[in-house]
Amino acid sequence: MKKWITTSYIENFRSYVFNHFIAKRSNHDLSLSGEFDVLECPNWVVVIARDEHKKLLLVKQYRHGIDDFTLEGPAGVIDPGEDPIVSAKRELLEETGHESSDWTYLGKLSANPAFQTNFCHFFFADNCAYKMEQRLDPLEEIEIILVNQSEIKEMIANGEIHHSLYLAALGLYQLHFNSSLEFSS
Amino acid sequence: MKKWITTSYIENFRSYVFNHFIAKRSNHDLSLSGEFDVLECPNWVVVIARDEHKKLLLVKQYRHGIDDFTLEGPAGVIDPGEDPIVSAKRELLEETGHESSDWTYLGKLSANPAFQTNFCHFFFADNCAYKMEQRLDPLEEIEIILVNQSEIKEMIANGEIHHSLYLAALGLYQLHFNSSLEFSS
Repeated sequence: MKKWITTSYIENFRSYVFNHFIAKRSNHDLSLSGEFDVLECPNWVVVIARDEHKKLLLVKQYRHGIDDFTLEGPAGVIDPGEDPIVSAKRELLEETGHESSDWTYLGKLSANPAFQTNFCHFFFADNCAYKMEQRLDPLEEIEIILVNQSEIKEMIANGEIHHSLYLAALGLYQLHFNSSLEFSS
Repeated sequence: MKKWITTSYIENFRSYVFNHFIAKRSNHDLSLSGEFDVLECPNWVVVIARDEHKKLLLVKQYRHGIDDFTLEGPAGVIDPGEDPIVSAKRELLEETGHESSDWTYLGKLSANPAFQTNFCHFFFADNCAYKMEQRLDPLEEIEIILVNQSEIKEMIANGEIHHSLYLAALGLYQLHFNSSLEFSS
């Protein structure tokens, strides 16, 4: 298989969190041609944050896609030119008021390669300590929830934690720290 | 925290894979008000598929968001009114030509709650066996890649597998089959 050829790339509209384009593309031998949606999005960061008592810091916030609350890790947009670790530290501080000096990079993944351009960088911040009050964006309401790490599994099983990027973060965490990805025999 | 109130919900445009709306919302005490992007998307399925030789069936396909190939599990859209397991079996058969009679439901997650409405259902299909040729959608080019399960970790670490929903699937798989989510001490 070879890369597809882009024959036109037209901006449809600009929005708050993405810019939408229509790409016309053909496969390499021109046997297939079509129009495809592309959302240009900035890259994101997601943090698994844990304090010195081995509690995970989750943020409860209103998410307008599902019109409901989520429980997830501190997360946000990487500003233009910003190093991902800087974004991760900024989001942790802004959303939870905590800082950490014990950071581990877990890797990066494509957020939704079917129609988004962006990648998400994942970090583990250990021994987070309270530093200052939250400093939220104008339209954010965020409640900090501390959870014993032993409870996370049950909260995923019962649907309290359901954000796919937080699960992806936990998948990367397992690979990094447990050095294994066990499949059943 | 209480749910936000939707004061208007206007369709902006309909596209191939989503319909875009602008929601005007206020928080419960009306101290915050703003406009938010909402992409109405159908629910999706993602399958971790393994054959009788303990090889994982991955699909290599062109993904127009990142304008590049991904290696990921068989996956797709749940048709209106379709039971997720039916969609999962259909996508496995269409994209890989394989069938399984050994299915495990791993759970559902919000695909991107910040601006998408949809959830993704995750399955593990074990002992997949070849049944027939692929039956692809008109604009799909999909190559089937068989990978030893012991190689998956390295392929994630080196970036060959980078789809966040496949990592989320592996996270759910670990929870389901290993009954544990181990955190470092």
